[in-house]
Amino acid sequence: MSIGSSTSTRRGRVVTRHGSIETPAFMPVGTQATVKTLHPDEVRATGAQIVLGNTYHLMLRPGVEVIEAAGGLHRFMQWHGPILTDSGGFQIFSLAQQAKVCEEGVSFRSHIDGSKHLLTPERAVEFQVRFGADIVMPLDHLVGLPAERRRITAATARTARWLDRCIAEHRRIDGAARGSALFGICQGGMEVDLRRESAAFVAAAEVSGAAIGGLSVGEPKEVMAAMLEEVAPVLPADRPRYLMGVGAPEDLWSGVARGVDLFDCVLPTRIARNGALFTPDGRIDVMSRRFRDLHEPIDPACDCATCSTFTAAYLHHLFRAREVLGLRLASVHNLRFLARQMECIRQAIEDGAFPAAHHAFANRYRIARGAGTPLM
Amino acid sequence: MSIGSSTSTRRGRVVTRHGSIETPAFMPVGTQATVKTLHPDEVRATGAQIVLGNTYHLMLRPGVEVIEAAGGLHRFMQWHGPILTDSGGFQIFSLAQQAKVCEEGVSFRSHIDGSKHLLTPERAVEFQVRFGADIVMPLDHLVGLPAERRRITAATARTARWLDRCIAEHRRIDGAARGSALFGICQGGMEVDLRRESAAFVAAAEVSGAAIGGLSVGEPKEVMAAMLEEVAPVLPADRPRYLMGVGAPEDLWSGVARGVDLFDCVLPTRIARNGALFTPDGRIDVMSRRFRDLHEPIDPACDCATCSTFTAAYLHHLFRAREVLGLRLASVHNLRFLARQMECIRQAIEDGAFPAAHHAFANRYRIARGAGTPLM
Repeated sequence: MSIGSSTSTRRGRVVTRHGSIETPAFMPVGTQATVKTLHPDEVRATGAQIVLGNTYHLMLRPGVEVIEAAGGLHRFMQWHGPILTDSGGFQIFSLAQQAKVCEEGVSFRSHIDGSKHLLTPERAVEFQVRFGADIVMPLDHLVGLPAERRRITAATARTARWLDRCIAEHRRIDGAARGSALFGICQGGMEVDLRRESAAFVAAAEVSGAAIGGLSVGEPKEVMAAMLEEVAPVLPADRPRYLMGVGAPEDLWSGVARGVDLFDCVLPTRIARNGALFTPDGRIDVMSRRFRDLHEPIDPACDCATCSTFTAAYLHHLFRAREVLGLRLASVHNLRFLARQMECIRQAIEDGAFPAAHHAFANRYRIARGAGTPLM
Repeated sequence: MSIGSSTSTRRGRVVTRHGSIETPAFMPVGTQATVKTLHPDEVRATGAQIVLGNTYHLMLRPGVEVIEAAGGLHRFMQWHGPILTDSGGFQIFSLAQQAKVCEEGVSFRSHIDGSKHLLTPERAVEFQVRFGADIVMPLDHLVGLPAERRRITAATARTARWLDRCIAEHRRIDGAARGSALFGICQGGMEVDLRRESAAFVAAAEVSGAAIGGLSVGEPKEVMAAMLEEVAPVLPADRPRYLMGVGAPEDLWSGVARGVDLFDCVLPTRIARNGALFTPDGRIDVMSRRFRDLHEPIDPACDCATCSTFTAAYLHHLFRAREVLGLRLASVHNLRFLARQMECIRQAIEDGAFPAAHHAFANRYRIARGAGTPLM
């Protein structure tokens, strides 16, 4: 696969009531109203411009009423920058019990206490507006792959009908005036024509941005790239494009090359908690014996709060001793690494030097085993 | 039991190469080269003046050589204030496998990998000086209570002989010139005469301070107080007195009333990780339903970094959702609470108002169930 033409890359700015986001940008995930292990000040210090929350998790715990009574999600978690909330569609299918889709919405039982719930497109939008989210995601219908084409077709069509209902509800409750912008989500599995159709539907809809869902679910990197290349030309040029669930450094570069503006993923913080740290040469395992006596930072060139203060030997010790501080120092490092990738990407785009910067990254960064073939 | 006479209270200053400690002071415990869940900057911000490390833990992991190669414990863990290291005697008896005492020292198997070790008084001192500890504790012989009097007598006598060997080794390796001050430890179980004898031995020894070990091991608060009252008059007035393993707010006040200058305990951080937070009215359980919708700080009068930023409802949520950030916010709060108690105690002593301050504390603070009878 060759490098995406540099004309596909985009350099933009998303403006919200809580501040603007220079794009392309990576968005750290704070599922349960906290970016795991981190204080909001630390998240901000990594260079993060916006964080995610998750409607499925937050509606179950602490509940919409509690967050509303707190004065909204920003005040509750003390993150004063923009927040995007996911509708929770993905989490219902991956976490909840007895998830059942009908035209009205998704019924499911909570993974926490087994209680019964029904999430409809209307309620998903209402909850997120009540959270005070700056960017609201519509409820979509996901199908686990592989699946029969007719099931993917039906789910994609339902996602479109649900988007119309989300738009209507968002308008009815004055979402925009309350500071919440609604995005659309394209689905379509790995079916090129369905993907293109879904993208066209979102492009024509009255939404503030277009998300691309249902990718990065285990398909080869070539397939994800091909899907992006089908979808990107169909999406309106003047609205942000958000590739959901993508966070591996190589995929950020590859996504930007194909016109993506926003990304989110639990990957950087999740692998950090397992002791996997990003470096310009690829991931390292901080538990590895070779760090036991390395009395310098994990990456001497890194400007994160962890590398500026602590040695690899100390991180190695914290992980070996199962000390909680290690989780946090590693999470700070990985988020800062991704934020710096995005800073580098934005600068390269501004300088008209994206392809060269992409090559420089790819020539050095060794892709993690199991993460698929390197792809430009 | 009546309040200790205010003339027993002491207001002092312990000077080390890494800074001085205004006493009375509480010392947070950083067993494995980290005060659990906290960044050293956070520990400092709670008002902590000195932290502890533990020789037993650190000799096993990461090992004396690693810490020495790192440039000492201060640099390894990036705590730039004073450090006191415990000799690990207590941990060998409580954690290690097959601990066996002979005159030479204690042999044991590591609780981590079962490896065999021998810790002698000489090695305990050598390791701590190599860590670069500002205050070094001698190896002592502990006996689990209840025990026959002759076993306590023998262990107390051995502790005295071992102290002589620690002093000799400390002198031989130039401990003082290398910035490490050696303390002595009084033992003696709950036997008044043995306690007094042991204290007299430590008082006569060439050590920089006197620790009181083997208390706060489950005995009634009256018994601990009685022991302190026996020991205090025997100890030299011009050297710091350190009551080991004490950290409940009521015991800090009671210890200061009986002439104690330094305290340490894992209590504030350990109970924090279980969601128990100190308030002027006693401990609260942040998981309790009553905090679900309390959108103000746990203690509105508290000046800690947690109460200054986050609400009780948010902490409640973090603990319910088992989010790591909760452990840390609670630990910050509890350490700041104890540091503030000590600030209040020091001010009261300076003002000659300790008994009144002690009464004011005790009239309000409800002792935790199972923590014994309130005691002045």
